[in-house]
Amino acid sequence: MNHPTVDPQLLREARDRARREHEEAKASGLKLDITRGKPCSAQLDLSERMLTVLAEGEHTTQAEGDLRNYGATQGLTELREIFAPLLDVRPDQLVVRDNSSLSLMHQCVSASFFHAPPGAPEGTGWAGQTVRFLAPVPGYDRHFTVCSELGVELVTVPMTPDGPDMDLVEELVAKDATLKGMWCVPKYSNPTGVTYSSETVRRLAAMQTAAPDFRVYWDNAYAIHHLRSSEAQLDPILEACEAAGNPDRAFVFGSTSKVTFAGGGVSFFASSAANVAWFLARDGFRSIGPDKLNQLRHLRFFESTEGVKAHMHKHREILEPKFDAVLRHLEKDLAELGIAEWTDPDGGYFISLDVVPGTAGRVVELAKEAGVALTPAGATYPGGVDPDDRNIRIAPTMPSTDDLDTALRVLTSCVVLAAAESLLADDDA
Amino acid sequence: MNHPTVDPQLLREARDRARREHEEAKASGLKLDITRGKPCSAQLDLSERMLTVLAEGEHTTQAEGDLRNYGATQGLTELREIFAPLLDVRPDQLVVRDNSSLSLMHQCVSASFFHAPPGAPEGTGWAGQTVRFLAPVPGYDRHFTVCSELGVELVTVPMTPDGPDMDLVEELVAKDATLKGMWCVPKYSNPTGVTYSSETVRRLAAMQTAAPDFRVYWDNAYAIHHLRSSEAQLDPILEACEAAGNPDRAFVFGSTSKVTFAGGGVSFFASSAANVAWFLARDGFRSIGPDKLNQLRHLRFFESTEGVKAHMHKHREILEPKFDAVLRHLEKDLAELGIAEWTDPDGGYFISLDVVPGTAGRVVELAKEAGVALTPAGATYPGGVDPDDRNIRIAPTMPSTDDLDTALRVLTSCVVLAAAESLLADDDA
Repeated sequence: MNHPTVDPQLLREARDRARREHEEAKASGLKLDITRGKPCSAQLDLSERMLTVLAEGEHTTQAEGDLRNYGATQGLTELREIFAPLLDVRPDQLVVRDNSSLSLMHQCVSASFFHAPPGAPEGTGWAGQTVRFLAPVPGYDRHFTVCSELGVELVTVPMTPDGPDMDLVEELVAKDATLKGMWCVPKYSNPTGVTYSSETVRRLAAMQTAAPDFRVYWDNAYAIHHLRSSEAQLDPILEACEAAGNPDRAFVFGSTSKVTFAGGGVSFFASSAANVAWFLARDGFRSIGPDKLNQLRHLRFFESTEGVKAHMHKHREILEPKFDAVLRHLEKDLAELGIAEWTDPDGGYFISLDVVPGTAGRVVELAKEAGVALTPAGATYPGGVDPDDRNIRIAPTMPSTDDLDTALRVLTSCVVLAAAESLLADDDA
Repeated sequence: MNHPTVDPQLLREARDRARREHEEAKASGLKLDITRGKPCSAQLDLSERMLTVLAEGEHTTQAEGDLRNYGATQGLTELREIFAPLLDVRPDQLVVRDNSSLSLMHQCVSASFFHAPPGAPEGTGWAGQTVRFLAPVPGYDRHFTVCSELGVELVTVPMTPDGPDMDLVEELVAKDATLKGMWCVPKYSNPTGVTYSSETVRRLAAMQTAAPDFRVYWDNAYAIHHLRSSEAQLDPILEACEAAGNPDRAFVFGSTSKVTFAGGGVSFFASSAANVAWFLARDGFRSIGPDKLNQLRHLRFFESTEGVKAHMHKHREILEPKFDAVLRHLEKDLAELGIAEWTDPDGGYFISLDVVPGTAGRVVELAKEAGVALTPAGATYPGGVDPDDRNIRIAPTMPSTDDLDTALRVLTSCVVLAAAESLLADDDA
């Protein structure tokens, strides 16, 4: 985006149209919400059969016996076999837990304060130390708030089209032993849609870290959430870490919260044998085992790895038109004005919209006046502060296509109005 | 138990019989396990209908809407209304979570290190401080291991027939600001079966504590687990705390792990408005909501508070004969010898057996030789060390009555053998 090239006359005309549309929206009493990446009803319906998939008497597996009782702490063997290939790990590296992957990440960070993960001196924890995590930005707000809740400081690094800026990452982790971890959404990244390149994965696995217990938190939330036939390929992180001689480098997380039911899904933790032993030991002090009946529901519902893939294709059929609707509006209303840029992701749950620097907060405010709730500007940055006040995360999954059409018309009007306020000397708004 | 009154001749005769029985058991290749309080298959069968209680399309409640999605963080309103009276709390004081109550207790202790509960100076946590909890003994081993995992020191206080020794408790908490909490299983206490008296509840609620953020961890695990028609009455702790002017004194915990399915149940946290707000705030950083579909299963399965009570009566019908079988053996084999004492609880999951001091470990060892696994001696004490080496916890729920008969014959033989080794000068074992 090169603002000097914005044509003031074009922008003025767009502003005048946008004003009318904004006034109309305000008058019409709209109430639309495109804030969070929640699945829509049609997506949830895809898993409806899971509610009834178990019959009376169906509560055992050969490997685990009676699933109604305590036990089977690593999760059902057959379910691990189904999901391991989808997360590019081996079944023995995989642990299945109740919802959600976020709670597993919180648990790992929190537990590290009491018992640091393998690599740290035996019997030590992070308590009392300055602990910092790297946060590629823009990123996932709930990663950041886990850290703020647990007193972990965040050090931001910029995202590039290949993943985090690895030159900077390597420099920081090599010299700073207080850097104990790094957040990564490596595939269809939240919110930018970027998938980390092979070179990025290799460098994350191989880099020298000053902290011996440094961990990459590999939140592979959208591993199988494709939106297009051009599916992104992500290199397997655990293999890369083994190959680089850093087998304990990464904690892998995933869940079925956006595959089956949000809340009623299962979550995954995968890592090296030493890390899995650490996780299960810590977890064993808080739990006598997960909800294995819900794991059995997932097992009977999917039956196989191919069953999961077929199921995800149905999600794509619902979501692809919604993403297209958003992109159509952005293209039609904003492209020729040169006042915004946006992503066209091959998967995941978000479209990332960059508006004129300094106007993102204003866009959200204007949209709210017109009855459209957007994720607060800055939500994709630690502390909720986007230093450029530029990024807006659009979540197209939940609303109907009709509601998306309406919301996007309002949104693009607000982008134009805020840009005009910022760029046009004669704008009196 | 008054050992000087043990009749040596009686004990010698019993020893000789016990030796023969122990040798026979060893030769027979027994393999029995009465270690943990796990429900038996017949108990789990009582809830089998919960596997199929939801029909396709049945995934909403009026108050919460679509339960397949994120949200409804306090838990289903109707389910809270059903269980609140059973835990002697108000529905607005109650939070419903996934399994298990142990994980909620772990979560509360752990979270306090980062954000201390109400009463502590704003913005402080327990990290870096010496933190100690009172532990009535004998008690529940998993309470103790939560503390050891999180670096919390335990200070033991003896149990009496009315609950913990309150003179000592009051003295300790009044003077020691490092005492931040206290474990309580107030009804059918684990393992002694004691229910706290009204006076104990009143004093716990009213006592002066040096720590402003002191919390009673009220693990009401067996609130509705009656074994006899003589149901114990426990005074409502939250009401007592309000009446005493210490409304934030207690965290109440419970679960359906031994009501429906272990692992597939739901858990409960109940407390004052300030504490519930604290809990939900902390929990909100790790979770976007519980498994509400499993809550709906519980709601549809029980339908009402009376439905839960009727269900618990069926548990009693299964368990009462098992407890009777254990008591019959203890009475028949040990009563006249004066070498052991045991509890006859009105509810809960355990019978607590006190043997000749210094012989509990030996009893467990002898039983193991004969193929009967007992909970390690000392498990009911912090660090697994019973200073008197006297207490053994018997868990009668899981084995069949036949297996219980066999296991108890072995157990009482071992109690006699170990007593003889300890008390008879001529015993050569």
